[in-house]
Amino acid sequence: MSKLRLSITMSLDGYVAGPAQSEENPLGIGGMELHEWFFPLAAFREMHGEQGGEINASSRVVEERRANIAATIMGRNMFGPVRGAWPDESWRGWWGEDPPYHHPVFVLTHHPRQPLQMKGGTTFHFVTDGIESALAQAKDAAAGRDVWLAGGASVVNQYLAARLVDEIDLSIAPVVLGAGARLFEGLEHGALALKQDRAINAPDVTHINYEVS
Amino acid sequence: MSKLRLSITMSLDGYVAGPAQSEENPLGIGGMELHEWFFPLAAFREMHGEQGGEINASSRVVEERRANIAATIMGRNMFGPVRGAWPDESWRGWWGEDPPYHHPVFVLTHHPRQPLQMKGGTTFHFVTDGIESALAQAKDAAAGRDVWLAGGASVVNQYLAARLVDEIDLSIAPVVLGAGARLFEGLEHGALALKQDRAINAPDVTHINYEVS
Repeated sequence: MSKLRLSITMSLDGYVAGPAQSEENPLGIGGMELHEWFFPLAAFREMHGEQGGEINASSRVVEERRANIAATIMGRNMFGPVRGAWPDESWRGWWGEDPPYHHPVFVLTHHPRQPLQMKGGTTFHFVTDGIESALAQAKDAAAGRDVWLAGGASVVNQYLAARLVDEIDLSIAPVVLGAGARLFEGLEHGALALKQDRAINAPDVTHINYEVS
Repeated sequence: MSKLRLSITMSLDGYVAGPAQSEENPLGIGGMELHEWFFPLAAFREMHGEQGGEINASSRVVEERRANIAATIMGRNMFGPVRGAWPDESWRGWWGEDPPYHHPVFVLTHHPRQPLQMKGGTTFHFVTDGIESALAQAKDAAAGRDVWLAGGASVVNQYLAARLVDEIDLSIAPVVLGAGARLFEGLEHGALALKQDRAINAPDVTHINYEVS
């Protein structure tokens, strides 16, 4: 059965991005520090067409995260720095003409826009009728495989509160951001019944997997 | 050299206690769920004079936490449910006449009170002149051994912000509390330079150790 799988990196104080996100600072102030465990990996370099890099305990985690994923859901602020109505079609995501998704990506927004077909199999679909619709479209596109819930905090928290997430794969970075976009915000006590599957000790990060029941 | 070592259990959404702490609900609503990994352990049962219990991956962590600790610092709300001035001397802590500390415990409060000598080596000292004074007194009492920073959130966050904590030993429970007393609150970006030492996968909990530099 197709699952909605959240995988995301969080600071020790609960943020997935710093404050003041902008085109110059896509992850906000300090946000890049969250991903310092990821950048040295061979898997990261390969995603960006580069060779070399490290293999360590995170490598298997990154591989497992991508396995069986055939569609992605993200919020509009993760897609780009443009806020409000789209002024034109010029913003095409952070990732260049060949984004590292290679499958359909459903971008939640209040502002309609035509689908954007990129190289390498990635098409951005802009969904304006809410999280359930985006999930239905993503599962349809995934055709029995899984859907990755990529971020940011606002969209993730909506899916968590609606109890639509099946698995949480959380990377906890040894970083305090102090402000920004907070994960698990706005949930009530008992909103999530979680079972810890496993935790992995990796260089500069801890990866924890939870099943949501 | 004597270290100040924080060890504490946090929910996935960053709380070390739930809301509405009271004499009936010392850890607030839902707060007991944080410690469900701890209760089945032989180490927990032994602390309470009982036999039996489990030995699992958490057992070594609990043992390491207690090793070389010779004094404890806690906030007044961790000591008890009484707020404001002490109406009398009747509140003697949550732990009965033989508390599981067996060393001097320094309780931060705005309200002076005479030291309270319990059975088994625990004496509660009430410190009204701030966190630096409590730390100096605790280190003096520890005589070269380490000081445990036990909680709650308010006192811990003050020590973190003042950069007085040397080690953080964090247990992350698979629980969402939604409200309560939040750890790492009020810190600025970069307030803590952390190095992850190790993460341990244990039943229903992940234990992560950080050095603060």
